[in-house]
Amino acid sequence: MNFSAITYVLSLLWMLLGLCMLLVAATVGWYFDTPAQAWTMGLTALVPLAIGITVFLFFRRKQDSTAMNDDRRMGYATVALAWLSASVLGSLPFITVSQFTVVDAIFETASGLTTTGASIIDDTQKLMGGKILEGGLESLPKCILFWRSTLNWLGGVGIVYFVLLVLPLLHLSQGKQLYNAEVPGIKTSGDQLTPRLNSSVFYILMLYIAITTMAGLVYWICGMSPFDAINHAFTTISTGGFSTRAGSLGDFGPAVQWSATFFMLVSACNFSLYLRFIITRRFSCFRDEEFRFFCAMVLAATAIITSLLLIKDPPYPLPGMENLSYLRKFELCLRKAAFHVATVGSTTGFTTSDYETWGLPTALIILGVMMLPCGCGGSTAGGMKCSRLIVLAKQLVYEIKHCIFPRSLPDIRLNGERLDSDIIAKTFAFTALYMCIFIIVAVLLTIVEQCDLKTALGTSLSAISNVGPGFGHTCPAYTFSWMKDFSKCLTAFTMITGRLELYTILTLFIPSFWRR
Amino acid sequence: MNFSAITYVLSLLWMLLGLCMLLVAATVGWYFDTPAQAWTMGLTALVPLAIGITVFLFFRRKQDSTAMNDDRRMGYATVALAWLSASVLGSLPFITVSQFTVVDAIFETASGLTTTGASIIDDTQKLMGGKILEGGLESLPKCILFWRSTLNWLGGVGIVYFVLLVLPLLHLSQGKQLYNAEVPGIKTSGDQLTPRLNSSVFYILMLYIAITTMAGLVYWICGMSPFDAINHAFTTISTGGFSTRAGSLGDFGPAVQWSATFFMLVSACNFSLYLRFIITRRFSCFRDEEFRFFCAMVLAATAIITSLLLIKDPPYPLPGMENLSYLRKFELCLRKAAFHVATVGSTTGFTTSDYETWGLPTALIILGVMMLPCGCGGSTAGGMKCSRLIVLAKQLVYEIKHCIFPRSLPDIRLNGERLDSDIIAKTFAFTALYMCIFIIVAVLLTIVEQCDLKTALGTSLSAISNVGPGFGHTCPAYTFSWMKDFSKCLTAFTMITGRLELYTILTLFIPSFWRR
Repeated sequence: MNFSAITYVLSLLWMLLGLCMLLVAATVGWYFDTPAQAWTMGLTALVPLAIGITVFLFFRRKQDSTAMNDDRRMGYATVALAWLSASVLGSLPFITVSQFTVVDAIFETASGLTTTGASIIDDTQKLMGGKILEGGLESLPKCILFWRSTLNWLGGVGIVYFVLLVLPLLHLSQGKQLYNAEVPGIKTSGDQLTPRLNSSVFYILMLYIAITTMAGLVYWICGMSPFDAINHAFTTISTGGFSTRAGSLGDFGPAVQWSATFFMLVSACNFSLYLRFIITRRFSCFRDEEFRFFCAMVLAATAIITSLLLIKDPPYPLPGMENLSYLRKFELCLRKAAFHVATVGSTTGFTTSDYETWGLPTALIILGVMMLPCGCGGSTAGGMKCSRLIVLAKQLVYEIKHCIFPRSLPDIRLNGERLDSDIIAKTFAFTALYMCIFIIVAVLLTIVEQCDLKTALGTSLSAISNVGPGFGHTCPAYTFSWMKDFSKCLTAFTMITGRLELYTILTLFIPSFWRR
Repeated sequence: MNFSAITYVLSLLWMLLGLCMLLVAATVGWYFDTPAQAWTMGLTALVPLAIGITVFLFFRRKQDSTAMNDDRRMGYATVALAWLSASVLGSLPFITVSQFTVVDAIFETASGLTTTGASIIDDTQKLMGGKILEGGLESLPKCILFWRSTLNWLGGVGIVYFVLLVLPLLHLSQGKQLYNAEVPGIKTSGDQLTPRLNSSVFYILMLYIAITTMAGLVYWICGMSPFDAINHAFTTISTGGFSTRAGSLGDFGPAVQWSATFFMLVSACNFSLYLRFIITRRFSCFRDEEFRFFCAMVLAATAIITSLLLIKDPPYPLPGMENLSYLRKFELCLRKAAFHVATVGSTTGFTTSDYETWGLPTALIILGVMMLPCGCGGSTAGGMKCSRLIVLAKQLVYEIKHCIFPRSLPDIRLNGERLDSDIIAKTFAFTALYMCIFIIVAVLLTIVEQCDLKTALGTSLSAISNVGPGFGHTCPAYTFSWMKDFSKCLTAFTMITGRLELYTILTLFIPSFWRR
């Protein structure tokens, strides 16, 4: 492997991280926080900047521009190292400005970059030196809150995505391998919009910025302060789920919650559909099988949970539901159901009320099942992606038919395009690996934390699918701060593995990966 | 489809059931119970006998002996109908002799035939006419207890297995299709021991009877009464798990528990290995990959659970462990661990102590994970079978390698034999279907019963893998009697689906199955 080529790409990423940090310090830090806090943030930014620039200048001459095209391993190694190193470097402001412990800071950064949105920040969190973070999330400096949102936003389309944009300027033609290693979903030939990868990346980024701006404006109009609106726009469109409030979106009104529901769902759909719609101006773009499946799933889950909430036994009404008119009651239930289906289905992880207090095991199982497929390929959502579920279902029906008609041949199509048996095998293997990691992490969590089954399974599933809140002791009412350091590292690593769709990280564990 | 050929085979099975019932009435009923009970059982036996003989005589001329060879659907339909009809006819003694409700009786019969061993019999069970079964399991007539064990034993190798033995006498050459539809595990060319299917079936049956006799003798020597010894031998070797005591094997001494552990593990291994060993007298037979994997899994799980029990926090010692010497303490923990690993890993479902009271979530997860692979193919155990897990694991490693070496070709072998991509695809599909049914049944259970997540998942997994006890409210300390009728039917149906390895039942739901 050509390590200098890898380090060269990584240095670009580190510079990007440093620049973003500096920008946050100079704007939010300067405007809202004390000068000491802003200066600390600014000085911290110099660390990744300095490392990045040094490595860039040092390796610029040494690297071989064609090295990456020959070897898939280079792509995987670069992307894996990019995410791991960004999780470490991005954690610096938490340590310098707010005295988080190292593990807590790395957990928060990994959770942010992978757009999981699980947090260890609450009023029981232990800081460096044994102090407790009194006042919880809302007592943190604004620049730290904004840095969390920025991490979400950078991780949304993928941190290497930004690097891809700069690469052609540097005459380095390794984009395709990096793209394959980072961008999620089943890759069929129809996926790339333009023949040049670079312009596809550019258009997707522009769209990402446009939708984020739109969400920010809508939130502002719905009554959020400009600071909250920008933060929540960043974390909604990236399906990240970090909030500036301890109560998440529960602290805001119905208008904000409805618009958040809308934008979460928008972010969970394939971005190239929107681009195709903008280019062709034809609604037929939305006849996409995966898109329709996702919509059907969201509608069905919302309908079921709404009716469950409505017909719930009188002894356990939702808080605030006692004296409402029937229409208002219906709106409240529908809003709660739609919001939570959207937040779980898009892997965002915002909350308005703690679903554990509903007392509806069926609703919990439905939300749990939705944590598996999650959004569509080519979106900012995590999880297995709906397209994989569709392929799986079609293959299963074929296999059952094959039992009784052993001479029938497979004809599995997605959007009319016939899928290779290779892609199907990979989809099945992906699902099985997903389940294995999900179960192994859950087992490790019960061993280390001695927590109950529900907490272990919920936390593990939430981490690998990048959702955020889980069930039991990691349900929205709690944070992850009660966990031991080992579990925090394990969960953070699971998030990164899930975000990079397993293979990018798992290949590192194959011995032949490291052989020449 | 040739329905007369199907009915012809079914009639043989019904006669077999009737004969067994008659035998139980004439021996156990006559010896232990009141004449009224024995006569009721004997008269009940006439129902399946009469139906069977009538149908047999009516369809003997009409059936076409080659019909089944042409059409796989015939095999699937016959086996599926055999299990469904046997679950109904076998339930008659419960209704006539002990006044069970129809749903309870069918649940108990399905649970018995599929060797699940989940029971609805306890001292809160409602009988026909609204009475309660006072005294629970041990108050039932002995002929009913023995009928339960007989159901286990008949279901162990498969009820159609017995029919296969009679078929060649009747010049009906449809054995192969029936065999494929009923016998579990991955079918490779090395599976059949003798060129004639019929003699393979005969040898396996002889071996089954021999091991059962051995187990009965050992139990007797270890201090069980002859009646208990025969009953438990029947339910151990079939990995059924019904017991004559409400406390299951917890009512017997350590010697019985250790020998039960041994025989449960013996029954969970491939019977053809034993036959091969008897024929060749070479220990190399046991180099079988699946056998070694199963042994390793059992040893590892036992070691982990034993140490968890030993190092458990003092506040929660196992009952009776307070004043023991260290060696006795170790024996107790090892016995409990080995016994429960064996009972879950072989899908038997006996219990000595309720694992929910251990307070060890890790042990619960390990037992839960063991409920998936369970025994080996060609054994009497349920579950997914270890061989499938091995194939899955090998394919997964290949797929990860394939990411970085895209030109590598698959070479997945089991015991040195190269597996077709067809078999691998089928194995993946099987696993995915298994998971889907597991989750769908769990969701339905939470909806109907409003039970917690753990109970729903545990019950569903236990039913599809034919284990018996689950977790939460279906843990060994409880029975299934608290469930609603719908859940009982659903669980019973899941057991049959799991026992026939999904496809045999699932093909019935494909519309093209019923087309000409």
